[in-house]
Amino acid sequence: MPQSSQKHRSPCPISSSLDLFGDRWTLLILRDVILFDRHRYRDFLAAPEGIASNILSDRLKRLEAAGLITKSPDPADRRQVIYAATEKGATLKPVMLEIAAWGAAHGESGAPPDFAERYYANRARFLEDHQALFENFGPPET
Amino acid sequence: MPQSSQKHRSPCPISSSLDLFGDRWTLLILRDVILFDRHRYRDFLAAPEGIASNILSDRLKRLEAAGLITKSPDPADRRQVIYAATEKGATLKPVMLEIAAWGAAHGESGAPPDFAERYYANRARFLEDHQALFENFGPPET
Repeated sequence: MPQSSQKHRSPCPISSSLDLFGDRWTLLILRDVILFDRHRYRDFLAAPEGIASNILSDRLKRLEAAGLITKSPDPADRRQVIYAATEKGATLKPVMLEIAAWGAAHGESGAPPDFAERYYANRARFLEDHQALFENFGPPET
Repeated sequence: MPQSSQKHRSPCPISSSLDLFGDRWTLLILRDVILFDRHRYRDFLAAPEGIASNILSDRLKRLEAAGLITKSPDPADRRQVIYAATEKGATLKPVMLEIAAWGAAHGESGAPPDFAERYYANRARFLEDHQALFENFGPPET
């Protein structure tokens, strides 16, 4: 994932997207922020995939540089930092839901058997209200 | 991207999807096969992103192991090989279109200005007929 100022590999919009998030970790951090309402470094670190701290730091910096997340002091403890999705970052929700549905249908995941079926039957509803899709299937235990 | 027999990082369906295609190249090969109707090793190698031959070989093997593509002799020249998407592989089309639309809207790509707008206004149509979405925006010149 190059910095956003770096040249893209080609004009293809799939390729330019993958220049940003074509790796095993970036979309998992955005999943935590956007789908699971998690906003702290320690929350990302505690996700069940076990991201390494150096990779997490790197991806957070790149996400911020790409304008997908912001970093601000935690109002509850100003020595701590809160990460939030920008408007641009939030537009990745449809990409994540489509990937989630595919993984649920084909990726041997732990998603409920009807997860993909419900999503494919009513994409528009769940793009509006992704919480409804994740009913009975909250954020993984950490 | 581990072999499909490998353990997933977590039960999350996004994570298990990224275990398969969370890298910069895998979806570009599937783009060539599924969206641009390209089926030969030399076509993938000639794509404008400039995939290295060793990475291409590796990803093709993994895609085949994961049941997303098949490999068969080219009827026109049986010393050559043709790659085609399986039914399971073809189900990644919605994921690729969603990524393409995001990249067109946000990724500083070479897609036409109305690419994402047209897609978002009528996802269902373009899932049925992706060629219509790529009108005036064919496969990149190689």
